[in-house]
Amino acid sequence: MINIDQYLVEKKEIINGALKKCQPVSGPPAVREAMNYSLEAGGKRLRPILAIATAETFDYYDDEVIDVACALELIHTYSLIHDDLPVMDDSSLRRGKPTCHVIYGEATALLAGDALLTLAFEVLSSYGLKTKGTDKALRIIAELSKAAGVTGMIGGQVLDLEAEGQILSITEIETISAMKTGSLLRASVLCGALAAEAGDRALKQLDRYASKIGTAFQIVDDLLDIESSPEELGKPTGADRDRYKSTFPALLGPDKARIKAESLYNEALEALDSLDQTTDLLSGLAHKLVYRTK
Amino acid sequence: MINIDQYLVEKKEIINGALKKCQPVSGPPAVREAMNYSLEAGGKRLRPILAIATAETFDYYDDEVIDVACALELIHTYSLIHDDLPVMDDSSLRRGKPTCHVIYGEATALLAGDALLTLAFEVLSSYGLKTKGTDKALRIIAELSKAAGVTGMIGGQVLDLEAEGQILSITEIETISAMKTGSLLRASVLCGALAAEAGDRALKQLDRYASKIGTAFQIVDDLLDIESSPEELGKPTGADRDRYKSTFPALLGPDKARIKAESLYNEALEALDSLDQTTDLLSGLAHKLVYRTK
Repeated sequence: MINIDQYLVEKKEIINGALKKCQPVSGPPAVREAMNYSLEAGGKRLRPILAIATAETFDYYDDEVIDVACALELIHTYSLIHDDLPVMDDSSLRRGKPTCHVIYGEATALLAGDALLTLAFEVLSSYGLKTKGTDKALRIIAELSKAAGVTGMIGGQVLDLEAEGQILSITEIETISAMKTGSLLRASVLCGALAAEAGDRALKQLDRYASKIGTAFQIVDDLLDIESSPEELGKPTGADRDRYKSTFPALLGPDKARIKAESLYNEALEALDSLDQTTDLLSGLAHKLVYRTK
Repeated sequence: MINIDQYLVEKKEIINGALKKCQPVSGPPAVREAMNYSLEAGGKRLRPILAIATAETFDYYDDEVIDVACALELIHTYSLIHDDLPVMDDSSLRRGKPTCHVIYGEATALLAGDALLTLAFEVLSSYGLKTKGTDKALRIIAELSKAAGVTGMIGGQVLDLEAEGQILSITEIETISAMKTGSLLRASVLCGALAAEAGDRALKQLDRYASKIGTAFQIVDDLLDIESSPEELGKPTGADRDRYKSTFPALLGPDKARIKAESLYNEALEALDSLDQTTDLLSGLAHKLVYRTK
């Protein structure tokens, strides 16, 4: 039986080490500091861990997939920096620290975000040139750029901004969540699988698994926004309510939202059942995501 | 002898057609409209034309390099949208039309820029999966992500923002120009050459050519900012002076700046001389860049 807490601690350390190595060593210090500040501000490293865990499920280990894992975190961090800007969510606290633009100014934060997104593809191209003779890096770039683009994360962010102050249906909330948060989580699982050269049938099941935990993750996020304190969460809470934002718990009530998350968790486990591999790691991570308290 | 004006018209049409096909067909309309607005606002399509012309120099034609050409324009357009934002250069006119954020709002413009940058890598990954068995797409992604990143375009933009209101040395101006404008022009030439699988010796000479015309292009840009009217140029003029911005003509005077541009042009031609290929196209383009009036 895998000790998931220990696994998370170990992988987080590996990812943090690798992210340090990704950071550019030349270029203007101001923007590099801003990039590093946001990268090193902590966070759960959930996306890279999902990629590593999926790769491991197919017997492909840390050092072989670490570039892919880093690219995912670079893209996630860029999205946080841009989301926090005053023209977007206007957030001043993230992961318990002042947000990037609060420290470095809006222009530098904007450019630091751009640079992290760009760096993700530089890292993936270098990964691709190392894995000679296979097109898996290109498939990963295809998957990730799509997940991060207009039909994925960015599209979700647009819909989310448009939805502020409106009452949405549960289907609309599901769509926004699947795009804004779900698509990068899904890409994390799929990119890990692509790196490990998992077959098409496995990719399909992993896709189902990832979509379910993506929505569950968002529901739990919304619940924590209501139920936690800023000290516990490292970011302002009650923000959704203050913006009259439609969320799963706002629409369903906290209890039904919690039940929905748990049922998605069960569906994620079902998707794993049909894989030939041992899936303790992925089921353990799903459990961790749904039953987390911060 | 090539008729460069006709060449530019023909290639521009091909590029505009291909850019239309690149645009996403799903995702929230607001951000797609903003992306399309800026992509279709015109512009010289200089970067894609440089890529196509370089590829043609090595007998590699339009339809084989068009994805690479489009990716360059997508990245260029994203950089313009972000540069024009109020937190950056705060420009309200570009290519004779209101800038993206003036029409669509700052949040959507920011996300449209992010989406164009992301789309560039989606286009390149799809190009790579088509060119089976070679790693040239990965080399192109490596080159382009580096050129667009902290040691290239973004780095130049940071230095440029930091330099506002300061008197710079000519070396400092050269560095900023090489990074901010030069690096993507250079990447355009090199990516065209990589697509055509040009050899290392040729890449080196093309690199010299591209660096020279990159700086010459910036000098001419600065001169046009002084000497043209907004009607001729399609964007506000005199902006550099109004910001007390250090430019080549501000430091050297317009006459010496013009002489410098012409001397860089001659050096670019020298770099072409050592290539085995017929370089009429690339020398013609260099001439066009340096002697343009808008």
